[in-house]
Amino acid sequence: MIVTIIGLGLIGGSIALDLKARGFTNHVIGVDKNPSHTSIALKKGIVQEIADLKTAVQKANLVILAIPVNAVVKLLPQVLDYADENTTVTDMGSTKAKLIESVVSHSKRAQYVAAHPMAGTEYSGPTAAIYNLFDNKMAIICDKENSDAESVTIVEGMFKILKMPILYMDAQEHDIHAAYVSHISHITSFVLAMAVLEKEKSINNIFNLASGGFASTVRLAKSSPQMWSQIFEQNQHNLLEVMDTYIEQFKIWRQCISEGDFEALQDKMEAANAIRKILDR
Amino acid sequence: MIVTIIGLGLIGGSIALDLKARGFTNHVIGVDKNPSHTSIALKKGIVQEIADLKTAVQKANLVILAIPVNAVVKLLPQVLDYADENTTVTDMGSTKAKLIESVVSHSKRAQYVAAHPMAGTEYSGPTAAIYNLFDNKMAIICDKENSDAESVTIVEGMFKILKMPILYMDAQEHDIHAAYVSHISHITSFVLAMAVLEKEKSINNIFNLASGGFASTVRLAKSSPQMWSQIFEQNQHNLLEVMDTYIEQFKIWRQCISEGDFEALQDKMEAANAIRKILDR
Repeated sequence: MIVTIIGLGLIGGSIALDLKARGFTNHVIGVDKNPSHTSIALKKGIVQEIADLKTAVQKANLVILAIPVNAVVKLLPQVLDYADENTTVTDMGSTKAKLIESVVSHSKRAQYVAAHPMAGTEYSGPTAAIYNLFDNKMAIICDKENSDAESVTIVEGMFKILKMPILYMDAQEHDIHAAYVSHISHITSFVLAMAVLEKEKSINNIFNLASGGFASTVRLAKSSPQMWSQIFEQNQHNLLEVMDTYIEQFKIWRQCISEGDFEALQDKMEAANAIRKILDR
Repeated sequence: MIVTIIGLGLIGGSIALDLKARGFTNHVIGVDKNPSHTSIALKKGIVQEIADLKTAVQKANLVILAIPVNAVVKLLPQVLDYADENTTVTDMGSTKAKLIESVVSHSKRAQYVAAHPMAGTEYSGPTAAIYNLFDNKMAIICDKENSDAESVTIVEGMFKILKMPILYMDAQEHDIHAAYVSHISHITSFVLAMAVLEKEKSINNIFNLASGGFASTVRLAKSSPQMWSQIFEQNQHNLLEVMDTYIEQFKIWRQCISEGDFEALQDKMEAANAIRKILDR
């Protein structure tokens, strides 16, 4: 199996490492518009060959797009144009509805399997690529019924090699869920970082006190702005809904604190403790 | 040196373990109103003796209060009443101004050293006590000039044994800093947990998608409601100020997303990325 990976960043690079190491493929072809990414990827042994988009797609049995979601919208139709009729195309984007929309009437739509591996770190680029990034994380395949059974089987096989249990859902449902458990976490981390950095201007050494709790809460604020602004753009509607739920809750908390109703606040915290059942399972 | 620890939870228990293991003391006396805590602490070897408050304070060279901050306000004057004139008293509370206020005119005020070790986990109780919890985290001593030099030296010695670098600041300044780098992180985590749990009621299986980023961001929502509601109460004024800065930023982000100004949003994320300089140092 020849695998072409478009986008040799954290996700694309990490997939390449595992698929090769675990025998899913012997030959990974890399495509990346950034020449420093391609040279690092070759040097680190992430890919065995670098090619232009057309050549790379034509040579591949499986093409994986691991680029920011707006770039997927632009490239996906072209990738399907170049693809042989036996080639499977998939993407690793954090949003799904608009990506699928971009090829809804493409003659080779059925060769495309929309997917999302729920894994990552706050780092980016091929130097961030690591082995075992995906082990035991969830993968989602969307709108499976609109893809050829053969193509779905190939992508399922890839996720199996990556040790990812697979969930199936429709793209709209995926985007709502992703807004709640991934996208909003990034927003609150970014905003917290901004609020604290804003204050830092007027108070010296505020960060000498930064403890593990703070680091954990703002970790995602180190994430790639280019990648995440596109995810927020594509999931605009769902994200606004979640943000409104969040801001409503935040205001209730502010009111409790402002009015000195710490008993009500303690009740709310006990309710929030229920998050343990999700985190500790 | 005989050390009495009042409150055998995560912090008190962990201090006891390290002070004994590292030879700062051979005998730790524990006080806790919860009988299951005292029996676990004895069984786990966290303390060598359990005593009532008065006896435990009278026997000690150093008394450490490691209880919720409202309980410190209540107990601290009484502890100083019981304390021999050569006994040093300190506390590990996350707020400082109101604790100090509670003994400002006490005849033994100078035997008290107000302190805050910036370390912890989201777990609580003596079963959560662990070795090496404090290594390389910051400790703060507040209003040092109002404590006897001998007492300050003893508390500094304790933090040295716990491998904590020490910062000195006044109590007001401490409480502002703590609001920014610790207390607000807990608020945003609790609120995020609430917002997502709220949605869970109407959407099945939302959490199958919960990834590492979500877990990291809401980790603090597992924290003790009893402990944190008291911290929020005592730091009410500073916390409201931080919450207002946060909510203002959050609304600007919402506006960018709602108006589709993703270029401005990307600029903001790049600004937020500056948090790396604090997290990665």
